[in-house]
Amino acid sequence: MRPAVLTSWLVRWGTEHVSRTFSCGLSPSPCCQQCLAVSLITVEDYEQAAKSLAKALMIREKYARLAYHRFPRTTAQYLGHRRVDAAPLEEGLPDFHPPPLPQEDPYCLDDTPPNLGYLVRMQGGIPFVYDNKRMLEHQEPHSLPYPDLETYTVDMSHILALITDGPTKTYCHRRLNFLESKFSLHEMLNEMSEFKELKSNPHRDFYNVRKVDTHIHAAACMNQKHLLRFIKHTYQTEPDRTVAEKRGRKITLRQVFDSLHMDPYDLTVDSLDVHAGRQTFHRFDKFNSKYNPVGASELRDLYLKTENYLGGEYFARMVKEVARELEESKYQYSEPRLSIYGRSPEEWPRLARWFIQHKVYSPNMRWIIQVPRIYDIFRSKKLLPSFGKMLENIFLPLFEATINPQDHRELHLFLKYVTGFDSVDDESKHSDHMFSDKSPSPDIWTSEQNPPYSYYLYYMYANIMVLNNLRRERGLSTFLFRPHCGEAGSITHLVSAFLTADNISHGLLLKKSPVLQYLYYLAQIPIAMSPLSNNSLFLEYSKNPLREFLHKGLHVSLSTDDPMQFHYTKEALMEEYAIAAQVWKLSTCDLCEIARNSVLQSGLSHQEKQKFLGQNYYKEGPEGNDIRKTNVAQIRMAFRYETLCNELSFLSDAMKSEEITALTT
Amino acid sequence: MRPAVLTSWLVRWGTEHVSRTFSCGLSPSPCCQQCLAVSLITVEDYEQAAKSLAKALMIREKYARLAYHRFPRTTAQYLGHRRVDAAPLEEGLPDFHPPPLPQEDPYCLDDTPPNLGYLVRMQGGIPFVYDNKRMLEHQEPHSLPYPDLETYTVDMSHILALITDGPTKTYCHRRLNFLESKFSLHEMLNEMSEFKELKSNPHRDFYNVRKVDTHIHAAACMNQKHLLRFIKHTYQTEPDRTVAEKRGRKITLRQVFDSLHMDPYDLTVDSLDVHAGRQTFHRFDKFNSKYNPVGASELRDLYLKTENYLGGEYFARMVKEVARELEESKYQYSEPRLSIYGRSPEEWPRLARWFIQHKVYSPNMRWIIQVPRIYDIFRSKKLLPSFGKMLENIFLPLFEATINPQDHRELHLFLKYVTGFDSVDDESKHSDHMFSDKSPSPDIWTSEQNPPYSYYLYYMYANIMVLNNLRRERGLSTFLFRPHCGEAGSITHLVSAFLTADNISHGLLLKKSPVLQYLYYLAQIPIAMSPLSNNSLFLEYSKNPLREFLHKGLHVSLSTDDPMQFHYTKEALMEEYAIAAQVWKLSTCDLCEIARNSVLQSGLSHQEKQKFLGQNYYKEGPEGNDIRKTNVAQIRMAFRYETLCNELSFLSDAMKSEEITALTT
Repeated sequence: MRPAVLTSWLVRWGTEHVSRTFSCGLSPSPCCQQCLAVSLITVEDYEQAAKSLAKALMIREKYARLAYHRFPRTTAQYLGHRRVDAAPLEEGLPDFHPPPLPQEDPYCLDDTPPNLGYLVRMQGGIPFVYDNKRMLEHQEPHSLPYPDLETYTVDMSHILALITDGPTKTYCHRRLNFLESKFSLHEMLNEMSEFKELKSNPHRDFYNVRKVDTHIHAAACMNQKHLLRFIKHTYQTEPDRTVAEKRGRKITLRQVFDSLHMDPYDLTVDSLDVHAGRQTFHRFDKFNSKYNPVGASELRDLYLKTENYLGGEYFARMVKEVARELEESKYQYSEPRLSIYGRSPEEWPRLARWFIQHKVYSPNMRWIIQVPRIYDIFRSKKLLPSFGKMLENIFLPLFEATINPQDHRELHLFLKYVTGFDSVDDESKHSDHMFSDKSPSPDIWTSEQNPPYSYYLYYMYANIMVLNNLRRERGLSTFLFRPHCGEAGSITHLVSAFLTADNISHGLLLKKSPVLQYLYYLAQIPIAMSPLSNNSLFLEYSKNPLREFLHKGLHVSLSTDDPMQFHYTKEALMEEYAIAAQVWKLSTCDLCEIARNSVLQSGLSHQEKQKFLGQNYYKEGPEGNDIRKTNVAQIRMAFRYETLCNELSFLSDAMKSEEITALTT
Repeated sequence: MRPAVLTSWLVRWGTEHVSRTFSCGLSPSPCCQQCLAVSLITVEDYEQAAKSLAKALMIREKYARLAYHRFPRTTAQYLGHRRVDAAPLEEGLPDFHPPPLPQEDPYCLDDTPPNLGYLVRMQGGIPFVYDNKRMLEHQEPHSLPYPDLETYTVDMSHILALITDGPTKTYCHRRLNFLESKFSLHEMLNEMSEFKELKSNPHRDFYNVRKVDTHIHAAACMNQKHLLRFIKHTYQTEPDRTVAEKRGRKITLRQVFDSLHMDPYDLTVDSLDVHAGRQTFHRFDKFNSKYNPVGASELRDLYLKTENYLGGEYFARMVKEVARELEESKYQYSEPRLSIYGRSPEEWPRLARWFIQHKVYSPNMRWIIQVPRIYDIFRSKKLLPSFGKMLENIFLPLFEATINPQDHRELHLFLKYVTGFDSVDDESKHSDHMFSDKSPSPDIWTSEQNPPYSYYLYYMYANIMVLNNLRRERGLSTFLFRPHCGEAGSITHLVSAFLTADNISHGLLLKKSPVLQYLYYLAQIPIAMSPLSNNSLFLEYSKNPLREFLHKGLHVSLSTDDPMQFHYTKEALMEEYAIAAQVWKLSTCDLCEIARNSVLQSGLSHQEKQKFLGQNYYKEGPEGNDIRKTNVAQIRMAFRYETLCNELSFLSDAMKSEEITALTT
């Protein structure tokens, strides 16, 4: 099914209008001349803008392919990469382990690949893999792609120049306006047809399409009431259990509360005080302290950490309660973040141990590792000598477990359920340092100053990229880099992520840069948005750009971020959808499109995605949509696809005209 | 505890500033002179405005007392009614039956008072009670207050004149602005103190304060998913049950669905199509048709009506499922509306029968009877000869059951759980008729034209008023009149309700009339607001005045109206609170204040209110608040009380100055 006639006309008009500007470059129609004269932008400017945008996309494509990140086939085709057509469709997909079958033991430590005997050395923050000692001595690394900072800096400069280039800004701004108006027209024309399609779609509605909570922190994945109930329950059932040790003295649960002068019976969500309120707006520091129940870091350690005297038992129990609720809901999945700080290489085996010992696996959860950007804190406490050491602590254990799973069975197993990495912290913190190839390398980054966001992102990407290549070579699963980005701070963060990330969380600041917003659209970079979180921290709900992004066709999903701090009801993700639906009057088709995006964006395996979205989910456009599973109208899919193709065609036209010019001169 | 120092200063300043304008009427301060000069309003104008407002309040007080409606003691005292002080505090309270004790049978038909043998006759739409046949012949009615239309018309004109009076509008507008700014200051100064109070309040938080859903229609009290599940369940378990009869032919459930060409297995919330969408905005007609599942009125009759072939069994079962959920939640109550149409006097016994036969009683529900304003439809179908007949059908059965419960045991029992009346329909429908004492009386209202809103309200009030007096005399429970009002249409509806209603649902249009808004504030008329319902029908969420009303100190509660049409999650009332909290950034104290208002406004009995709000809940100001039960900060209560007293003091000052003038001239 295609969008109604008028939309086709619109699409055609869009194409003709702008392509006249380009293809017949020298004689634009009077209408175009007029438009262009007004903004004093020449046709050549536009052509240049389109070419630069195409180049930016090709840069992203390069970094994406290197790291087994995703890049849309359609975009690649329009960029003139014919070879894409030949490659099998599934090729570019990331590799995630399918979940164990019901009869399989998710904690089975057998079936571990042999030791390859490779060696890994970090040099300047980049991991180099050597086949053996001799190769290491000869400095001849194993054949894998290794990142090159100099090229990266050049690529980065291209995008940085682009986002401030006047004509490119005008071009992108106009295209985005066009996209928005075009969707409005689509809505007016096709809304009822879309709903008719959904009404005649049997047995599938908004409630039973799969939804993934694409951005949620494990330490805040339960709601405030749940945490309260759990604390009360532990106190009622085991007050005399030893739960901590301080200077050799064992401390019972009762003593913990005694020392805080409180009786858990009296505890309320008010005194627990973990909910973000008006006080946290633009105060990320205050927000972070909300992770401490009753303002006491002892309780955070006891209830919300994986490492403590109880081996993280309480935290595991709560996470499992949340998992049971997801499993009961059947249609909801989540991707909680667990922290690796990089203080010590022991963090990894301990985390894997926690996961296996407490049997935290759930078919409705996939795990992401978050790395807080707090090198400066560890450095000032003399826990780390350099930033390079932090990178080693984070990544070397993964290389070792990949090369020699036999000796790291638990970590090897845990990594089956980990699908990506996140980079987290307050983005609004300013950094004086400007990252470039002249920046001190991680080994010699020994100052107490924190490296800037872009530095963190590059080195995380570099490590994940090499790691993914090594793992792919072994037939092991790969990881996606999914940093927090564009929640606050500088818009250049979005440039870093454009190169290095598979997808991002937040992306609010795309609002401020038409060029980046348009690039994120063309590259269909998934964005996990959390408007309720933003509402408490950085941006009022009514000003959140989610609706606008969705309308323009950006690949957005809805996520909760921190149910403990932001949500009121038992079903945080449904609360998120309900509020968005109510405030922005989203249609069922809108909601189901967001839900479909969330599954695509997630780390769910190929097999699960086929089950939840349809056999051909990885195909782009309407043929990739199975309405019986997604409840997204085909007319909507057709509109999105035709619109994207239309936008991309301008870039390919511009590139063709360049080729023609090159041939004729 | 009192509000922080600066607020006291503010209150003082407020008093001094304005009282200087009044008490020393002839020589206002330069500041006042300047203010007044700007708006060209003289001090005398203001004094006149204050006096007129006081008169309006006295009018409301009169009608409230006549009908056993509530009127705030504080307001009465400032109006100079010293006798109020002497009366016992509980005197003005409405009489609701306490719920049966756990060991008591809620359906017990014994313990029925004797027959009084009175006779009732409707004359001009007003019920007159006679002690016996002789008194009826002599036309000497039983000593009860009977309403007088002429007085009512005069009283109504006073308010109507007031709301368009320039100086009064300026006065009210300024006072309302002042109230809003004052609350902002209070918030800035005392927000943290309020939260500190709540944090130190043991064992009580937003989740376990009592909340009443003060406005909800029984036929839409389940959410869309619930209805869908129920329909599928009935089809699975009893497809061959006879569920209807058409022209003598018995029809099974399977046949019902066959005739609609659908298999309930395939049914989804989309095909069910009972949810309000963008299509219903400003389309009450479309909204009403959303009550028909799959657009089929057969299914509405079968699943959402109390009268059908199954005796309303399906509907009762669903309502009871909703009730079970409320009981499990423990802290949530609701006041669903059941319809009495007035087509026949048999509706009442049938409804009572439905209630008792299906055992619909729940401790977490109190019932309200809604009367749709659709005389015109019945008249055009020749089901009714006159509007008077409709009134008779609605009210005479109640008089009979009150006079002679022995012969109406089921209705007598059912009425124990009914606490009020609602008047419902689309308010935006225009009426040509202007209600006055010249209007045709109900007996001779035989035209097909529908009487206007004000006509309906007056006659419903008149009947309820006489009925309440009769019931009070017998020691039976009384009813509150709680019409839908100010959802759309003319603001004069709010004038009618100001005289006749105990409290109203919606009240959106108070936004448009400063005088009425200020009067509703001074009289503390409870308003059950449903911003999500408004969002789908009449007013976008962000423009809803609830937050503004709450800040100014109007007595607002939150309610769901129609979960089936508006809500997404399983807990509709919590969804309502959560969205309000998120979008308007309401504090916990705000939320708990709204919850407390909802209990006060509700038809829960004196005993229940004491249990849920505190022993002295009926006292006004901070002494009526028990923070251990309500989780509302005393500082907030003190602020509200001082602010109200301050506003009222201007009225009493104006009235005193009048007395002085009268004495000295």
